Amino acid sequence: MKIDILSVVPALLESPFSHSILKRAKEKGLFEVNVINLRDFSTSKQKQVDDYQFGGGAGMVMMCQPLADAIDTLQQDQKYDEIIYMTPDGATFNQKIANRLSLKENLLIICGHYKGIDERIRQHYVTMEISIGDYVLSGGELAAAVVVDSIGRLIPGVLSNETSALFDSFQDNLLAPPVYTRPADFKGWKVPDVLLAGDPKKVDEWRTNQSIERTKERRPDLLED
Amino acid sequence: MKIDILSVVPALLESPFSHSILKRAKEKGLFEVNVINLRDFSTSKQKQVDDYQFGGGAGMVMMCQPLADAIDTLQQDQKYDEIIYMTPDGATFNQKIANRLSLKENLLIICGHYKGIDERIRQHYVTMEISIGDYVLSGGELAAAVVVDSIGRLIPGVLSNETSALFDSFQDNLLAPPVYTRPADFKGWKVPDVLLAGDPKKVDEWRTNQSIERTKERRPDLLED
Repeated sequence: MKIDILSVVPALLESPFSHSILKRAKEKGLFEVNVINLRDFSTSKQKQVDDYQFGGGAGMVMMCQPLADAIDTLQQDQKYDEIIYMTPDGATFNQKIANRLSLKENLLIICGHYKGIDERIRQHYVTMEISIGDYVLSGGELAAAVVVDSIGRLIPGVLSNETSALFDSFQDNLLAPPVYTRPADFKGWKVPDVLLAGDPKKVDEWRTNQSIERTKERRPDLLED
Repeated sequence: MKIDILSVVPALLESPFSHSILKRAKEKGLFEVNVINLRDFSTSKQKQVDDYQFGGGAGMVMMCQPLADAIDTLQQDQKYDEIIYMTPDGATFNQKIANRLSLKENLLIICGHYKGIDERIRQHYVTMEISIGDYVLSGGELAAAVVVDSIGRLIPGVLSNETSALFDSFQDNLLAPPVYTRPADFKGWKVPDVLLAGDPKKVDEWRTNQSIERTKERRPDLLED
């Protein structure tokens, strides 16, 4: 899988893809992420990419020209399965969308900044709009990083043990059960007996019950789906 | 405001806080973010921070000792308003929580990794558990970065124009209206006439209507709150 990311602050994304799981995925050749500087596609002398918004008001808007030229140029080399715009008014990202996107081959992600991108690019180029949650960020870069991370770890072979992702929260509309590691007694706080007794069937039962109880208590909405 | 972040992959967070709005906020002295290496608090020779989970199963669990010692040590120097653990089964982050946290003085954010942290740290140290959305990431670092970014931009003086944040999506349970910038005609795709006519009252009306329409169409759930 290859993901291209269009950004006006490409340096912001230098470290998130260079460590941990995504680094290993890149080294194994399972995954490629390119961060492309939108400014390189501006035809103005000052490499302008934003301008005041029509109708007045605070905040700049990202112009059509650099975005349209960047997308046109990139599309000469590959067909994108989706051209994704990260925006608070997009569809709320979740594990189902992550699963679906992890099966694609080529994705382009556009990071907005300031007040967002010119609506005409959304209408004529963008095929999918994603919000990572009901809050506003200073730009789309961290949102893009979140999407890339959540997709990247689902690609087979990226996680060292493939069963890991299957037991994560949300894969079955349940939250994950509590986890414990050594020591069994820390400052007098003890690990539940069932986890120490060595009966795998009882451990499974306990974990399933804990998952259901935790979901009922914290996120009953997940059980309604 | 000061935010401390406890992480086993501090390098992952090198770039997100060194650019754009958060960089300016730090330069203005409005905001301080410290990323602290959890491994520095491990008492084992190998600087171990994780171990196999009790009860068996794939995935490692972050141990009590380094976390407890790190939090105890950090708390000698300051009182935290909240000790936040980033976890998929936490409370879903939103703009209201961002607004509330932006008024605090000292926050500590714990980034989970692998299967998460030992449940006893959650019970005895953590005061607030936050999920940035219904999806799983390879670690809590990007989630912490998202929370820091969304909080940071709300601190007065951080955004160059303070009115900017007030018109963002979610501040009034509405999505933001479409935005446009020059040229008025791009490839034959035109900007709505009302934005060019120069009547601020009509522009305001149009934007409010567009906000309501977009919210009804894309996120009717926001209007029910």
